[in-house]
Amino acid sequence: MDISPFVFRSDTLKLLDQRKLPNKVTWIRCRDAKKVYWSIQHMVVRGAPAIGVAGGYGLYLGVRSYQGDRKAFLRRLEEQAKYLKSARPTGVNLRNVIDEIVARVKAVRHGTVKDLKARLLHEAKRFHKEDIELCRSIGRHGSRLFRSGDHVLTHCNAGGLATTGYGTALGVLYACKERGKKLTVYADETRPLLQGARLTAWELVRMGLKCRLLCDNAAASLMQAGTIDGIVVGADRIASNGDTANKIGTYNLALLAKAHGIPFYIAAPSTTFDFSIRSGKQIPIENRHATEVTMGMGRQIAPKGVGVINPAFDVTPHSLISAFITEKGVLRRPFQKSFSTLRKK
Amino acid sequence: MDISPFVFRSDTLKLLDQRKLPNKVTWIRCRDAKKVYWSIQHMVVRGAPAIGVAGGYGLYLGVRSYQGDRKAFLRRLEEQAKYLKSARPTGVNLRNVIDEIVARVKAVRHGTVKDLKARLLHEAKRFHKEDIELCRSIGRHGSRLFRSGDHVLTHCNAGGLATTGYGTALGVLYACKERGKKLTVYADETRPLLQGARLTAWELVRMGLKCRLLCDNAAASLMQAGTIDGIVVGADRIASNGDTANKIGTYNLALLAKAHGIPFYIAAPSTTFDFSIRSGKQIPIENRHATEVTMGMGRQIAPKGVGVINPAFDVTPHSLISAFITEKGVLRRPFQKSFSTLRKK
Repeated sequence: MDISPFVFRSDTLKLLDQRKLPNKVTWIRCRDAKKVYWSIQHMVVRGAPAIGVAGGYGLYLGVRSYQGDRKAFLRRLEEQAKYLKSARPTGVNLRNVIDEIVARVKAVRHGTVKDLKARLLHEAKRFHKEDIELCRSIGRHGSRLFRSGDHVLTHCNAGGLATTGYGTALGVLYACKERGKKLTVYADETRPLLQGARLTAWELVRMGLKCRLLCDNAAASLMQAGTIDGIVVGADRIASNGDTANKIGTYNLALLAKAHGIPFYIAAPSTTFDFSIRSGKQIPIENRHATEVTMGMGRQIAPKGVGVINPAFDVTPHSLISAFITEKGVLRRPFQKSFSTLRKK
Repeated sequence: MDISPFVFRSDTLKLLDQRKLPNKVTWIRCRDAKKVYWSIQHMVVRGAPAIGVAGGYGLYLGVRSYQGDRKAFLRRLEEQAKYLKSARPTGVNLRNVIDEIVARVKAVRHGTVKDLKARLLHEAKRFHKEDIELCRSIGRHGSRLFRSGDHVLTHCNAGGLATTGYGTALGVLYACKERGKKLTVYADETRPLLQGARLTAWELVRMGLKCRLLCDNAAASLMQAGTIDGIVVGADRIASNGDTANKIGTYNLALLAKAHGIPFYIAAPSTTFDFSIRSGKQIPIENRHATEVTMGMGRQIAPKGVGVINPAFDVTPHSLISAFITEKGVLRRPFQKSFSTLRKK
């Protein structure tokens, strides 16, 4: 069983509304790029790989009705690409997917506008289909890092809901289960938007994995007690040196893992790597609205007038990362060397 | 301006219902020990020093109507003491206050039952009055550790609401303000019960301190950015070697402080020290109900059927603590030596 937050049919992208989980399973229909942009920004769809795939379809929806000539069409395509890429700044998959689709559409030298649109849709669907294959490969490689009986901690949701099904970090855990390895999974609830409590716990329960939910601040105490054997999380962007942006709280966990001698793994497809930047210092960190914190679950939980710090991501230095689990294998240090397998096309 | 969660008048203990803050200021009236026990267990009143003072009044309310002879009265007193001490296991102030009151009542050798009751009420009031003095002394000593312009992080609520006014960790910050030192205070929201968001932010705004609220998992990222100059928190129990039980997430912060070279202070009165135990391993950690996590702010935020880990406290090893701020001064390492000032009566 896979969990897919995507259906594309009849020029409509249906997105599972992840804001409403676990209480309601409802879908948002996107028929234009604006609705896809809104869905990414409001986290109807979230998770760097899923955002990338949504962006691909969004690009198609942004130009599918366009009736101008080839040159005007390509201009429109560039505009829509730029617009969609600005929906969220930290993750790089959105940019990588859109840039690659634009390049491939432009590469159709002698087609009509209709041909270009067909190529665009074909590419968007290819990224969709590929994503599941990438996740399954990540799972296959990563499953070798864990043993039956292990207690594994994860943060946020890097599962089927963050991809187009199966997942990256959770894909590794699902692959363990498929191979008969019995794990106990600890899920950080992941404030402020509770992706761990609402999404990861929901997925794990559906997939039949043993799952225990905890508040983010309790992870250190579990590690102190010797309960955690390994940590695996996803990523939103990985710099050339291995510095990794991921959901706020990831850097915290990586430091705790180091202090307790626990392996700390990042699971991510090669589309999450950004070889155009040298280090994590160049990754823009999105700051989100204060009400995500002060309104907790829709109710006022803090006094009015209080200042709020609400970064959506943090950057974990490469020195705290044991290995990267990618579709091309488990990449260990020195990362500069091991990353070379990803640079080859 | 002090913030007091206590009023005792006409044999009634009025407790500010801290579960309802910051949205409502309502009071719970306790006329017997059972209601005080319930109020402690359900966290109407919380914070180790405040629980101690509430326990003292609870003991009085538990025996005030008792009409037997002196011997039967003392038996009843012992029963009520044992009952009240069992309300919450981790903090030691409740036990320390109740044991001392019982000892002092017993020391009244030739009094009537009426005399014993009067002594009991006198002692309960004395602990109430003393608590504010202790906090002011803690504040005076602690204020020397910070400079104007400092950015200070705190966790949970060790403020006026956790004591009988003023506070321990927040008392230090209030004392800084009174001395003209301008601080910026960062308050961890402190899941699951959000004492930081609901109580600390509420106090700080009322007291006119500059306050910024953050989710617990964002503290590491602030430290990485060099934003935090010092951390000060309260304590629920401190063992002979300095190991300190405090709200879940404290140990996490202490490790982060160490990794970033930031001083980490515990502010607590001498009644929080438990010299009957050698180390933190002997401190019982209260596990609270799963719904505190899964029902976040009264709404279902996790799928039904998910397991939950919900320890209310953790233990920070003494090696991660820079100093203890007590009413008798700032105690630095070696703690075995500096703690001797507390052991003297």
